[in-house]
Amino acid sequence: MASVTIDEIRAAAVRIAPIARKTPVWTSGSFDRRSGCEVFFKCENLQKGGAFKIRGASNFLYSMTPEQRALGVVGFSSGNHAQAVAIAARKLGVKATLIMPDDAPKSKLAATRANGANVITYDRLKESREAIGRKISEETGAMLVPPFDHPWIVAGAGTCALELLEQAPTLDALVVCLGGGGLLAGSAIAAKALKPSIRIFGVEPELGNDYWLSRREGKPVEIDSPATIADGLRTTKPGALTFPIIQELVEDVLLVTEDEIKETTKFVMTRMKLLVEPSGVVGASAVLHGKLPKELRRIGVILSGGNVDLEVLATL
Amino acid sequence: MASVTIDEIRAAAVRIAPIARKTPVWTSGSFDRRSGCEVFFKCENLQKGGAFKIRGASNFLYSMTPEQRALGVVGFSSGNHAQAVAIAARKLGVKATLIMPDDAPKSKLAATRANGANVITYDRLKESREAIGRKISEETGAMLVPPFDHPWIVAGAGTCALELLEQAPTLDALVVCLGGGGLLAGSAIAAKALKPSIRIFGVEPELGNDYWLSRREGKPVEIDSPATIADGLRTTKPGALTFPIIQELVEDVLLVTEDEIKETTKFVMTRMKLLVEPSGVVGASAVLHGKLPKELRRIGVILSGGNVDLEVLATL
Repeated sequence: MASVTIDEIRAAAVRIAPIARKTPVWTSGSFDRRSGCEVFFKCENLQKGGAFKIRGASNFLYSMTPEQRALGVVGFSSGNHAQAVAIAARKLGVKATLIMPDDAPKSKLAATRANGANVITYDRLKESREAIGRKISEETGAMLVPPFDHPWIVAGAGTCALELLEQAPTLDALVVCLGGGGLLAGSAIAAKALKPSIRIFGVEPELGNDYWLSRREGKPVEIDSPATIADGLRTTKPGALTFPIIQELVEDVLLVTEDEIKETTKFVMTRMKLLVEPSGVVGASAVLHGKLPKELRRIGVILSGGNVDLEVLATL
Repeated sequence: MASVTIDEIRAAAVRIAPIARKTPVWTSGSFDRRSGCEVFFKCENLQKGGAFKIRGASNFLYSMTPEQRALGVVGFSSGNHAQAVAIAARKLGVKATLIMPDDAPKSKLAATRANGANVITYDRLKESREAIGRKISEETGAMLVPPFDHPWIVAGAGTCALELLEQAPTLDALVVCLGGGGLLAGSAIAAKALKPSIRIFGVEPELGNDYWLSRREGKPVEIDSPATIADGLRTTKPGALTFPIIQELVEDVLLVTEDEIKETTKFVMTRMKLLVEPSGVVGASAVLHGKLPKELRRIGVILSGGNVDLEVLATL
């Protein structure tokens, strides 16, 4: 049995309603013609903070006790989670410290600071963000808000698929990008609870294939820090909480190349008029490039975020 | 009394339903904080063909007799109208010839061809597209589909505001970009019919200020072909049908600079995650840069289209 339940996801949906938006589901004739499927895009790029991360972060902060919130929170993230924690913290009047890699997209660093959080940068290749986070937490009593591997975060992320299945109930399959696995795990629990026949797929960049390798081994495998353009999916190891959920509920983990990610980012921008960050299109990329079983017709795809620097776009 | 009625716009809405999409209305906390208003964006960049133009073009083709349709249609346009005629013609099985400037955005030329239309390019500075269009029309019997100055086109364009006022009924004001004036005229008729107290504003690029000059003179004034980045608003003269409607129903025509257009294009892309072409953001640009009367609070803005070349975006 999954360690996070549909009831917890439903409770999270009520809890986060004052902060998170109900994002639209959109379709595209161009995408459908090209992919041969009928695709329903859950536009989390239009979510508050520009990514699905606000769902988990706000559920986390709302789930803390008032005494815990009084001591503040600390988080580490490549960007979207940091920004989400900053937004939720500002909304709830909680002091937030965020530890972000010094090579995180400028837009994400700036947006996190703009939300009033204290941002500490670190060298992703030399320092451990976990160690920095633990040190701050021990010194100040601030509670650590992990980016994915926590039941409150997974339950919050699961509200995304909860909404999608209400908006598009006839889906055959759900395709979700896969970094740490919080969005995929939460969405799988919600989707399978609402529709047991639905088939669930995770998608990783080939360069950041930690889940794909781990499934082959049957246990979590750690990889080197991946150099993928999908900066939100640069996790090196499946989560202790998320991996077993994904093992149980997810049919397959698919891989997409850097070129496929770039091409899909451009396609979504020029044909669908939506700005989605490279990390956010990997699910769409798998569908566009025919990586799913051919019999699937009505496919839900989460466009997980839209925070991308214009400089990165210019390189496409 | 306006020469196009709300009943004609309502009839157009029913007629075009098989082709045009009901586009979403979206809001943005970032935009509202920056502008000090509560803004409701009508996302015609997400419309079929990437712009509102399908509304007028499909209403035109559906309004033709079967005998007229059998002889085909011919149109001239900087891009979005051509693409819309091509899409509507393909849908109705009508042969279409489109005359487009040879410096039209590549994305628009390609998309029009991709929709099965015969595209003829011309030199915008040396040749007359009207003359080329008339010649083809006379030789083949194909009916000319004008880009804006026709009651069927104006009625079709008006369905955009008809939808918006149903989706966001509490608006104080409606702000619409202004090229030939088809979208503004049609939207003004619809909005004023549904809500007589609503205040309507048109917005032009400073470089393409033919309406602004014409209002000062009290009669249509012709300007040189403008060099604005807003390629959809490069008309040189108000329409004979649209100008009197706009004179009667529109409170003011506002101007925005090229820098203001570019900044707004970037803002809408990076903060709102929507790809909108420069022509499509001029209304939003006027709101963002404080050009409207200060007392207005709830403002509807039409994001009229999203067809922009990546090369153009890279220059921003």
